[in-house]
Formats: sequence, C-alpha cells, structure tokens
Amino acid sequence: MKILDKLNRRIAQTRSFLCVGLDSELSRLPERFQKEPVPQFAFNRHIIEQTIEYAAAYKINSAFYEAHGAAGWQAMQDTMDFLRKTAPDVFTIIDAKRADIGNTSAQYATAFFDQMGADSVTLHPYLGGEALRPFLSRADKASIILCRTSNVGSGELQNLIVEEDGERLPMWRRVARQVARHWNAHHNCMLVVGATTSEVLRDIREEVGDMPLLVPGVGAQGGDLDEVLRYGLDQNGYGLLINASRSIIFSSSPKEEAQKLQKTMCAYMHI
Amino acid sequence: MKILDKLNRRIAQTRSFLCVGLDSELSRLPERFQKEPVPQFAFNRHIIEQTIEYAAAYKINSAFYEAHGAAGWQAMQDTMDFLRKTAPDVFTIIDAKRADIGNTSAQYATAFFDQMGADSVTLHPYLGGEALRPFLSRADKASIILCRTSNVGSGELQNLIVEEDGERLPMWRRVARQVARHWNAHHNCMLVVGATTSEVLRDIREEVGDMPLLVPGVGAQGGDLDEVLRYGLDQNGYGLLINASRSIIFSSSPKEEAQKLQKTMCAYMHI
Repeated sequence: MKILDKLNRRIAQTRSFLCVGLDSELSRLPERFQKEPVPQFAFNRHIIEQTIEYAAAYKINSAFYEAHGAAGWQAMQDTMDFLRKTAPDVFTIIDAKRADIGNTSAQYATAFFDQMGADSVTLHPYLGGEALRPFLSRADKASIILCRTSNVGSGELQNLIVEEDGERLPMWRRVARQVARHWNAHHNCMLVVGATTSEVLRDIREEVGDMPLLVPGVGAQGGDLDEVLRYGLDQNGYGLLINASRSIIFSSSPKEEAQKLQKTMCAYMHI
Repeated sequence: MKILDKLNRRIAQTRSFLCVGLDSELSRLPERFQKEPVPQFAFNRHIIEQTIEYAAAYKINSAFYEAHGAAGWQAMQDTMDFLRKTAPDVFTIIDAKRADIGNTSAQYATAFFDQMGADSVTLHPYLGGEALRPFLSRADKASIILCRTSNVGSGELQNLIVEEDGERLPMWRRVARQVARHWNAHHNCMLVVGATTSEVLRDIREEVGDMPLLVPGVGAQGGDLDEVLRYGLDQNGYGLLINASRSIIFSSSPKEEAQKLQKTMCAYMHI
C-alpha cells in the first residue's frame, strides 16, 4: 500500500482530518503522570487511548522529548512503539523538522523511518531536494516539507518575492511548486501550511493538486478551522491533516476536544 | 565572557581555525571501539585526545547519534560532558540544524544549550528570526544559521533571486544580510557557508563584517582550504571555523591529519 493511501484510508475510516499533536511538555503534565517511570509516554498513552477514534494521525513533536535527553528520546520511541502495536492503521508523524546534506539526511531517515518506525517526518526545504533524497526516495514513507509556517514572523523569508521565468511569486509558493514538480516522484510528499493564512492555503492547493497538507495552528495558535476546511481540501475531498496539540492534550477532556474537532471536520467531508 | 570571545580566544590559543566534526558513524568505527560499552563516545574520546591541541572547536553531528536511538543520544551527551570537563576552553557545536515555532524552539534551546551544554547550535533560517528568538536571545550561546550550504543541490532555493528595495540578490545573500542586520542584537550569530563556493564566501564576508563563518566541505566534500582562508577571514584575522569530519576522524592518523590542516591554517594567521 502506498503511504498516502494509508493516510487516506485512515481519514475515511475515522471520518476525520484530525492530527493530535503530542507536544507533551513534561512540566505541564498532570501530577499522576509525573510519578510514572516514563512520564511522557504514560501521558501520551492516555491521550492516545482517549482520542484514537477521532484521530486520523498523531504527530510527535521531537523537541519536547529531546529537552529531556536520552530518557526523553526513549519516551518518544515508546510512544511510537505503542502506536504501531495498538493502532497500526493510524498515520504517524515525527515533527522533527530536519534537513542536512545527503549523507547526514540518510542518518536522520534511519532514525525516524527505521528506528522510530514513523510513517513520515517534517523537513526544512532550504538545502533543496537533492539533500533530501534519502527521505524522498523512500516510497514507503512520507516527507512533509515546510512551506508556509504558522508563526507570526514566518513571512520574513517565506514572503520574499522570487523570480521564475519572468513570473514573480512569494518564496512559499515557489517551494510548493518545486516540491510538486520535482520532489514528488514517489507521490509521497506533503506540505506544512499554517492555518493562520487561508488565502495562502487556497493558492497552495491550486499549486499542488491533491498533495496532502499538514495544517498546524488551529487551536492554541488561533487559526480558523472552517476556513482551513473550506480552502484546504482537494477535489476528491481528501488532502488535509489538521493538527491540534495543546488545545487537546492539556484540556480537561482530551476526548471531548478531539470529538468536537472531528465533528466539525466530518461536516465538511464529502467522501 | 561573550560567547564569540571564547571562540576567538581559542583560535588564538591553538593558532587554528580547525573544527573537528564528530560524524562518528557507528558502522565505520574501528573494531576496538565497537566492543566498548558506548562505542561512539569511546571513539570520540580517542579522536578528541588525538586532535585537541590542533582544534579550535568540535562539532557533533546529531544525526549520526539519533540513528541509534536513546543510546546514541546518550553517546552525544557523554561526548559533550567529556569536552566540557576536560577541555572547557574549546568551542563546541551541536550540528543539529533545528528551527521551529517559538515555543518549540525554546525546547530545542533547552536540549542543546542546557542539557547538552553546547556553546552553539546550527539552525535553519526558513521560519525567520522571530521563531529563532529562544536561541538568538541567549547571549551566552551562539546561533549558527545556515546561509549557503555545501551540498551540490544547495542552489535550488538558496540561489533564487529575491528583490529588496529594487535590489536583486540571491536568497543566500538575503539571509546573510537579514542575520547581520536583524538577528544579531547579542553579537552571537554565525553563518554556515559551504567551502565549495569561494566567491560566495567573499560576498558573504562583505555582507556581514566580522561575523564568524562555519565552513564545512573542506576534505571529503572537496572544498579548497587555501581559498577559504583567502576569502573567509575577517579584517581582524578571525572570523573562520573550518570543519573537517570524515577526512580526520576516519584517517589512519587523526592527529597527523589535524596537525596538517592546522599548519596550513596557521600560515594564514595574522593575529
């Protein structure tokens, strides 16, 4: 099965575009998890059990684990192992935002695709497609390229106007085009597009056809869910993974928050 | 002491701009290290002991450790602990190539500056200076921003022509300018500039004054050391860290290789 077929099958199965972000900051975990041998894993396990029927995907934000050294890395591995064992149909993302020259990218691909066993990893575009080949060449895994991010200062470089054959377009659009035309030979690319800019979302959809978009920034970051669904879906009614992290995992009821988001998403579903 | 003063003091002390890159790929380590409890650390310790008198800095390439999970992460931590304990004057770099939105960047800053105790970390520029604030605001640590990388496909995005007030310039130069003018309030920024493009090196030096440049790509990647020294030094005779990884650490005599490079560098030294 192609890797993006796995994603679409899971979307259809759950009637949901929801990606639950496991930004499981140790100091914010409820006290009962702090006492566990591996607190971040115990917390993640709880969140997964609460939200699994509403979640098309889970996204592990590697920074929150690396901040706790080797033990944190192990908590990330334990979470991935648990997901693969208990929910093999769910689409998994390590939000690691890596990218380096080829021989180093190959090591990162080993770390996240093989050691962790993730379905996908997020990547910076700045070094170009050649540097990312160890990720892109893995037809069994998805590469999720940063295109237009959700932070307030994202425009500083991403909005710069670049030229191509007399056409002038913003950097983020140039990245989207480059990925769609040149990096996607194995039909395994996705893009990160922040929810805080729905016009951007529309333009990128125009640029990339049915390439799936990972949209962070709904929830704690203030993006509008309805706008994302209106402009982000592809012509077949797929093509979106909408991430919510803090607004789910640190709510008083992760289950209810996930269910609420799934319900909104389901209303836009036409598959 | 300001963090870049630490770097310059070390350069003056060793009469060297050499940065030894610990790309310690597990499968390439000599057999005697494979038998050690923490093979990558045992190997790094040996390399450090062999090269310390010629090295201004050490650079740990995080990918080669992450490929081995929590145990690899621990080997990276052990190496940093060893460096800080036995050679506190040496400048240390984690070549992690991170960057994410602010609250996530803060976690990475904790991981590399506080947990690892590194003097500096390498960073992607694509999310802009706002996202990197948790790194840039640390006056006690250096942020090393990717500007023009050494991989053969680096030009795909980095050479795109962008406009600024009617001026047309390549993306890499725009990044250099942005860092110099807006990201460097604490005088703790550096740039990554590949050795394979000496004209680029000259232009960037012109753009950034005395900002230090980390130059990979000498050695296994084929960059010309003399060209780098000719075009890369700042007006005070500082401003360079030249990295060699595989050509030193996997040579039959790491000590001799490091000494040879240091000797070439010393000939260009006018401090």
